[in-house]
Amino acid sequence: MQAVYFNGRWIAPEEANISAFDRGFLFGDGVYEVIPAFNRRLFGAGAHLDRLTRSLDQIDIQDPLTRAQWMDVLVRLVSECGADDVSIYIQVTRGATAKRDHAYPNPPLPPTVLASASAIVPLSAEIFTKGAKAITVPDLRWGRCDIKSVNLLPNIMARQQAVAAGAVEAIMVREGIALEGAASNLFAVIDDELLTAPLGPHILGGVTRNRLVDMVKDQGQIPLLEVPIPFDRLFDATEVFMTSSTRDLLPITRINAHPVGTGKVGPIWTKLSKAFTKLKQQRET
Amino acid sequence: MQAVYFNGRWIAPEEANISAFDRGFLFGDGVYEVIPAFNRRLFGAGAHLDRLTRSLDQIDIQDPLTRAQWMDVLVRLVSECGADDVSIYIQVTRGATAKRDHAYPNPPLPPTVLASASAIVPLSAEIFTKGAKAITVPDLRWGRCDIKSVNLLPNIMARQQAVAAGAVEAIMVREGIALEGAASNLFAVIDDELLTAPLGPHILGGVTRNRLVDMVKDQGQIPLLEVPIPFDRLFDATEVFMTSSTRDLLPITRINAHPVGTGKVGPIWTKLSKAFTKLKQQRET
Repeated sequence: MQAVYFNGRWIAPEEANISAFDRGFLFGDGVYEVIPAFNRRLFGAGAHLDRLTRSLDQIDIQDPLTRAQWMDVLVRLVSECGADDVSIYIQVTRGATAKRDHAYPNPPLPPTVLASASAIVPLSAEIFTKGAKAITVPDLRWGRCDIKSVNLLPNIMARQQAVAAGAVEAIMVREGIALEGAASNLFAVIDDELLTAPLGPHILGGVTRNRLVDMVKDQGQIPLLEVPIPFDRLFDATEVFMTSSTRDLLPITRINAHPVGTGKVGPIWTKLSKAFTKLKQQRET
Repeated sequence: MQAVYFNGRWIAPEEANISAFDRGFLFGDGVYEVIPAFNRRLFGAGAHLDRLTRSLDQIDIQDPLTRAQWMDVLVRLVSECGADDVSIYIQVTRGATAKRDHAYPNPPLPPTVLASASAIVPLSAEIFTKGAKAITVPDLRWGRCDIKSVNLLPNIMARQQAVAAGAVEAIMVREGIALEGAASNLFAVIDDELLTAPLGPHILGGVTRNRLVDMVKDQGQIPLLEVPIPFDRLFDATEVFMTSSTRDLLPITRINAHPVGTGKVGPIWTKLSKAFTKLKQQRET
């Protein structure tokens, strides 16, 4: 049985028990990251750990591990998991409290640290040949979506709506703007331009999103704009796809009851998806 | 050592450990209640349990206990606690998962149920003679504040800002409207009328708030309006107070750098506070 990292120790997953008075459980007072490895090599770990440090900083929790310590944990988790393609989950909370009190404990508690790994279960090949369905939902999330916190109730409610509608993802719409998915970023090709929401408090700057933006800009072949995508313009898109660290670029060929463009996966997704796969195959952590 | 109720058993608090893969810990996928008892008698338990059932229903978790079972748990917790004035905490989550996946598990998992009690620590008497300070903060919370979920990160961040500013509470302001506190409801006397935000998705309908509204309407002496309170009008208030189940009516005599009215506790708070204390002394669960 593969071990998980828990507060400085390596233990069996079923031994990873936290106090019911952990602030992560009582208040959702913590942040997380999901870091992939492909062919047993970490991908984008530096960017993910940067974002973890930033999320922690935004809610005044000190990063409990040094960068070198985190890398040791990640490398061991990939090894423990045994699969080729691995999803690593990290969560850090403000620690377990003796007394439930909203304000941050002073002096600070020792943070609770959990890190575990699981095999990435590939999506069906059909999704990448035929594309998938997404639905749109009102964005009920809080005003700091740029902090990767475990306050995920609106996200899971949206994802549940998607599943119930036979869709793979829910696109969050706030004040007439299509922002991103419940656990992914959104790209749309409209009038031959590739659009995605700009960074800001209403989206989580995905590592795959940011890397793709850089790649497209470097290539200079497709005009890319980081601009708000109006909800109604989404239905003028000839292509739509959604990005995440474990699913890369997921082609969306149907939104609600409407086909996207021709209803088939498009040439820009095909091109970028191939280029991104190539990027992943380069050794990098 | 007093026992806590945990998934059907009575155990020591330090034995109340949940799996680190509980959806409450991973996603904040759960709801809670805080139910007071005064002089060892439960107060408003029926209204709190109604709200618990409603919160659970809104996120598709079945209430794990019958009303009679909940009442047995509450009564035993008051007895276990030993204090005269008791705060009971209940939390129910969607349960512990084998695989981290946003969508609701199907079939559903057994919910995780935690209930514990602690003595209510009274606020200093000075707060009720001199009044307390509140600050205003932007409301960063999600769009369903009527669900009493454990996604409380914006609430604790706001409360922390209040503590750092030497204040007892933070007043949430959304789109120019002063809605409620981080863990309390807001009342303001403006032009001799008592105002509080109407029920809706942007506030949590507090049991004390609702009971006070009913009491004031029944008495018919003070005009009470459930209307949005514009942020700038808050500074025209002659009196402000905030309500919660464990603090009752808390007089606010300073908001940010400004005194409220004369800067002293006012006659309407004094009158209502006395009447509310009397109401509490009537036997009721």
